[in-house]
Amino acid sequence: MKRSHFYLKTYPEAPKDEISVNAKLLSRGGFVDKLSAGIYTILPLGWLVLKKIENIIREEMIAVGGSELLMPSLHPKENWEKTGRWKSLEDLYKLKEGDKDFALGPTHEEIISPLAKRYVSSYRDLPIYLFQFQNKFRKELRAKSGLLRGREFIMKDFYSFHRDEKGLDDYYEKMKKAYARVFERLGIGEKTYLTYASGGSFSKYSHEFQTLTEAGEDVIYICDKCSSAVNKEIIEDLRKSCPECGQRILRAEKAVEVGNIFKLMTKYSDPFNLHFADENGKQKPVLMGCYGIGLQRALGTIVEVHHDGSGIIWPENVAPFQVALIGIQGPSAETGSKSVSLWCEKIYKQLKDKGIEVLYDDRDVSVGEKFVDADLVGIPIRIVISPKTLEKKSVEVKERNKNEIRLVQVSVLNEKILKILGRNG
Amino acid sequence: MKRSHFYLKTYPEAPKDEISVNAKLLSRGGFVDKLSAGIYTILPLGWLVLKKIENIIREEMIAVGGSELLMPSLHPKENWEKTGRWKSLEDLYKLKEGDKDFALGPTHEEIISPLAKRYVSSYRDLPIYLFQFQNKFRKELRAKSGLLRGREFIMKDFYSFHRDEKGLDDYYEKMKKAYARVFERLGIGEKTYLTYASGGSFSKYSHEFQTLTEAGEDVIYICDKCSSAVNKEIIEDLRKSCPECGQRILRAEKAVEVGNIFKLMTKYSDPFNLHFADENGKQKPVLMGCYGIGLQRALGTIVEVHHDGSGIIWPENVAPFQVALIGIQGPSAETGSKSVSLWCEKIYKQLKDKGIEVLYDDRDVSVGEKFVDADLVGIPIRIVISPKTLEKKSVEVKERNKNEIRLVQVSVLNEKILKILGRNG
Repeated sequence: MKRSHFYLKTYPEAPKDEISVNAKLLSRGGFVDKLSAGIYTILPLGWLVLKKIENIIREEMIAVGGSELLMPSLHPKENWEKTGRWKSLEDLYKLKEGDKDFALGPTHEEIISPLAKRYVSSYRDLPIYLFQFQNKFRKELRAKSGLLRGREFIMKDFYSFHRDEKGLDDYYEKMKKAYARVFERLGIGEKTYLTYASGGSFSKYSHEFQTLTEAGEDVIYICDKCSSAVNKEIIEDLRKSCPECGQRILRAEKAVEVGNIFKLMTKYSDPFNLHFADENGKQKPVLMGCYGIGLQRALGTIVEVHHDGSGIIWPENVAPFQVALIGIQGPSAETGSKSVSLWCEKIYKQLKDKGIEVLYDDRDVSVGEKFVDADLVGIPIRIVISPKTLEKKSVEVKERNKNEIRLVQVSVLNEKILKILGRNG
Repeated sequence: MKRSHFYLKTYPEAPKDEISVNAKLLSRGGFVDKLSAGIYTILPLGWLVLKKIENIIREEMIAVGGSELLMPSLHPKENWEKTGRWKSLEDLYKLKEGDKDFALGPTHEEIISPLAKRYVSSYRDLPIYLFQFQNKFRKELRAKSGLLRGREFIMKDFYSFHRDEKGLDDYYEKMKKAYARVFERLGIGEKTYLTYASGGSFSKYSHEFQTLTEAGEDVIYICDKCSSAVNKEIIEDLRKSCPECGQRILRAEKAVEVGNIFKLMTKYSDPFNLHFADENGKQKPVLMGCYGIGLQRALGTIVEVHHDGSGIIWPENVAPFQVALIGIQGPSAETGSKSVSLWCEKIYKQLKDKGIEVLYDDRDVSVGEKFVDADLVGIPIRIVISPKTLEKKSVEVKERNKNEIRLVQVSVLNEKILKILGRNG
């Protein structure tokens, strides 16, 4: 993409009302635009990143057998009354149309549980794995953490349906691994801990995936022996020992919950009569699990984990572009037979042909401004072409997260870039 | 996809409260599930179709220079008060959070116009082309046309921003062609008419794209001489003559509006002070155009246009699968050295390897049921394998919209199928 053809405007300062690092950098970098507290437009640059996050999650959900569908946001009041959550859930947006009341879906158990009846009558119809990427709405009193806590956000919500506890337990363990792979691929694996949380009244524990960051609103207690963690909610009950290995030294850290998995058991199948006939024809309630990841929160968390004083440092898998290409014009427009611009065009094309996403900054602004923008926007690799580099038939290559600048021969540039990106030519 | 691994349940009867053909067939075929009047879940099978519709539209919008973004559904009241539509728009859903009022976006002029100020200061910043696929909400008194008219639906809304009328006019003509390509690729091009509609108080005409169908709630007046049409709203003003060629014989037909394009001029740039400095530094208002297509309505319209007594007949571009594969077991399980099931597996794989999407009906149900389902679900090509066909090293191939059944040698099956699909091997 040529910068002159892309809707990207960066700012030297963040909006005054943004407090969080993620919202400051994502606003300055032209990824998002705040419409109201906790409500953001995802701009074209941010959309590139969000789509990559979505696709990584989708791939892992399909890998564990999930099928994608799309449920509505407008939920009839009746569904929410059946579970008692019309009254009990404080963050539910409600609206009226004539004599009809709707909730704006903050989650979808009340919709998918009756829907699943369509597919379930016998034990042979189970298990079932369904998921969606869908906009959620939650009244949010403290919407001040930027993208980490929104009134409106896209969530991947996945629901599983099982015959028995063993089926649910096995699948739950499988999903733990799928979630670990997601956060690994999103570039926050190292800082993300499987964290024991309360299982409500139905199962002993549920699990959160918590990513360490100063921006986090949660505190978790890490066991350095087995690398698991415990959340604040249950630490007292556990008398400060690790539920995994029993060790008593737990280190407190601030963290943000990037995902959660929960055994719902029959909490939602009961009110909706989601039953099946077992091998002996006996009616039994379906057991359910649910598994969520908020996309905007994932976006914000990646930024909280990966940034420095100059801007964002995107992990390659989710970077909007892999390469920022910048030309420095010499005092004369020619170097040998080709100008810098022509070489930029040539290298832009040769990288694109290899499937590398390049943002070529072809604007008529100072080189300094281009350097500042490339760092702020956080593109993993910067390539600079100047009369000086071209004298040596080379370009300068710098990785965003390293200080070293290397001269690379144009003839071997493709393979060097692919190598940095961990791909085969 | 193997049917046994896919969440698809079909029904011999449509829900009693569905009146429209599209909702009846999409419900019976397992594409959608009605949650409430005008509010549908898109089931996994329907999601495959909707994604194809979305991708065709996306490709054509990118081809005319569009950049994708995502705006929120929760709109602050202030934005809608600026244009007066907080009061004037009857189908606006409104909700409250504390002392803050929101509208649920039925369209996004009130959001994108102030947003565009981010990118526009000088004439050099124009034109701008932005679009999204986003969930819209509209109070809908007559939500009885199934997917054609919903309270909640995904819309592709595209907004263009220009320096002057010539820029807007030229782009508007370009978009007309892009829309014609979209409807052509969706398989409803032949029945879709560019239809003159009222331009409001700002331009002489706007245009609708109207698809002929008995299910349509609109009436349009077709000029058979130049193949354009006029909508009901302006036919009286025109004294029943074609605004394109002047002919006075116009044929009335029922139709559904599948898209519209509109010159907004300065209707939204004025209230939001969306101005730019021209070549002489003079401030001028930006001229805007908007261009919408509702995805669920497109889905429903395709079904209204393409069905018969047995079910849906999907155009290949949007079919959830291109091939329905069915095996008929012989009285003995063996034919030569391979059973029918093994051949089904083999052909399933060889077609998949060619990038052909196959729904292999591997269920343990009668062949009759499989045939009925393949027709109802509307897959363009049906392949049947039986001991009889295998004796001739062949399979039966039938196109959904033709009566003829052909025997095709297994050795040339791939190329025959690709040929039917209009693709090169």
